Amino acid sequence: MARRSRLRDRWTAAGGEAALVSRPANVRYLTGWSVPGAVLLLGADGRDTLLSPAAPVTDGRTGPPCTTGDLRCTVLPGDVSDPAVAAAELAAAGPATALLAVEEHDLTVVRHRALAAAAPRLRLTGLGRAVEQQRLVKDEQELAALRVAAEITDHALGELLESILVGRTERHLALELERRLMDHGADGPAFPTCVGTGRNSGLPGHRPGDRRVEEGDFLSVRLGARYRGYRCQIGRTFVIGPAPADWQIELYELVFAAQRAGREALLPGTEYREVDRAARHPLEAAGYGDVLEPGTGHGVGLEIGEDPRLSPAAMGKLDACVPVTVEPGVHLPGRGGVRIDDTLVVRPQADGGPELLTITTKELLAL
Amino acid sequence: MARRSRLRDRWTAAGGEAALVSRPANVRYLTGWSVPGAVLLLGADGRDTLLSPAAPVTDGRTGPPCTTGDLRCTVLPGDVSDPAVAAAELAAAGPATALLAVEEHDLTVVRHRALAAAAPRLRLTGLGRAVEQQRLVKDEQELAALRVAAEITDHALGELLESILVGRTERHLALELERRLMDHGADGPAFPTCVGTGRNSGLPGHRPGDRRVEEGDFLSVRLGARYRGYRCQIGRTFVIGPAPADWQIELYELVFAAQRAGREALLPGTEYREVDRAARHPLEAAGYGDVLEPGTGHGVGLEIGEDPRLSPAAMGKLDACVPVTVEPGVHLPGRGGVRIDDTLVVRPQADGGPELLTITTKELLAL
Repeated sequence: MARRSRLRDRWTAAGGEAALVSRPANVRYLTGWSVPGAVLLLGADGRDTLLSPAAPVTDGRTGPPCTTGDLRCTVLPGDVSDPAVAAAELAAAGPATALLAVEEHDLTVVRHRALAAAAPRLRLTGLGRAVEQQRLVKDEQELAALRVAAEITDHALGELLESILVGRTERHLALELERRLMDHGADGPAFPTCVGTGRNSGLPGHRPGDRRVEEGDFLSVRLGARYRGYRCQIGRTFVIGPAPADWQIELYELVFAAQRAGREALLPGTEYREVDRAARHPLEAAGYGDVLEPGTGHGVGLEIGEDPRLSPAAMGKLDACVPVTVEPGVHLPGRGGVRIDDTLVVRPQADGGPELLTITTKELLAL
Repeated sequence: MARRSRLRDRWTAAGGEAALVSRPANVRYLTGWSVPGAVLLLGADGRDTLLSPAAPVTDGRTGPPCTTGDLRCTVLPGDVSDPAVAAAELAAAGPATALLAVEEHDLTVVRHRALAAAAPRLRLTGLGRAVEQQRLVKDEQELAALRVAAEITDHALGELLESILVGRTERHLALELERRLMDHGADGPAFPTCVGTGRNSGLPGHRPGDRRVEEGDFLSVRLGARYRGYRCQIGRTFVIGPAPADWQIELYELVFAAQRAGREALLPGTEYREVDRAARHPLEAAGYGDVLEPGTGHGVGLEIGEDPRLSPAAMGKLDACVPVTVEPGVHLPGRGGVRIDDTLVVRPQADGGPELLTITTKELLAL
């Protein structure tokens, strides 16, 4: 598989030999298979082995993928949640080389120790975030999956907006959105759907509760479909009733301007923190600096919050074909707030600039 | 909080000083609060601090719980997914003692290293699975939550059985079960609902797909409600159509007998592996030894697969008030299979023996 070859080329150039990939999204990226608990052993000789606690199943396709091309698959006997079992199997299947690079940001101290004990002839070193680095820039197949995820998400949200909202609970609306995502072909929600109304609106991590939608409320929703493993995100805020209040219009316009500034900053070569600054500055200038979240966006792909982070301390520059969210928001405790989230793909100005995947309108709708 | 005092008593008796609890279910158990990314610092002096990336929210109740009793809550500024930020905050809030016990089975190598670097005056040691050990035996409040979770689960399954099943897809049935769990008051599903029909029936990790229920199928479902954080599990297998085939009756009766033997073995003082053997032996004797899973049951509580494991290699003995599943199954590749899962609480014979929480009938229903 081209992705595994590319990774191998990079890390053998850096002096690496065999590597063990354990982070689930990284295993899926490099094999196409999603198996809880599976790890991927990349041999320096090009022989790769998926060590799996069960026959792999991905999106309804059941494995084994064993002997597909250059990937061997070994189903581990025994309880792989026991690190000693996994480590011993690994040692048996493992490389004859002296150096094994592992994902130290994924392995727990206990698993790392069990691995070292079970394979004493191997010297463990760090693979770092090499696979996450490679996952930053998406290929056409990945972008196609993200576009479908966004289309499903827009459909689900659009249908909800046509229904009657007053009197329904946050929890009920969230369930309905998730059902509609599935109806339109999602594998599942990309993350737990967030619906907040009234004083709960605009809270980023709010868990939908029993509060009912009332006239005059802000209603904020955040949802996304997962399609072939790829996750997108949309966030919108509406007003319930015939007309928004002045403070609602003012707050909405402010967040909208901030979100637009963030979107417009999405160009190849722009520093991550510059994008964050573009979205953050209008909100800080309006006096909301104290209530802002640490970041105003993040990468999306096989995980919903992946690299890059769009935050004041983030280091690095955007590349073309990197999909990210832009999602500033302001929540006023006790009153409510506004969030507007989009998923976009970074594109050069010559290609028309950032590609907006989530196209539901960002006008302030009074529903 | 009594749970924190009990933990502190045990580990100070073992020579421990301060401790850092990072595993989410353990943090929730010891504080009552569920906050993604929060860690709990237990001071040797009885001063405990919840280091949280956001105001804690549990089951719709929004924090801060700060200054509730003996628990302080500090909301961390910055991006707590960055281990260096969390570690530095921790060092600032941390104890003046020399020894800090951490959960090495939860902390990644990178977080552990960042912690050591940010707090060089602390010597890190292992807390082991002390909190998991304490979580094994449930108190009355925990058992009450599990009983409600089981009641919700039985209701949801019962309603599904009254509806027409032929022609509906696995995916649609799974969604409907999850919706019914929520309708009856669940916080959410305890785990992804599993529905398998025909050749997919009896597969433990099957993801519901587009296969439709047909006459003559085995239909197996596995679901559970989460209520106040506590998770239960039920699994049942049905036959679709007027009458089961002979092979279906035979297989069902075999798995039923195995499951009953497992249930009847649930008494205080019985070794975990004896329970597993009771459920496993009838299936092995019938020639299915090769297709069995590593375990035939597990503990439930704040996590769906927690200690104890009921498997051939498990070490330890059951105590009263430990809730576990008993869930043997046989899947015949290409044909389908049978699973029967219950959640029960271990009780002494004098108190009537094991308390069955999931009471949906285990007769072989032809639907």
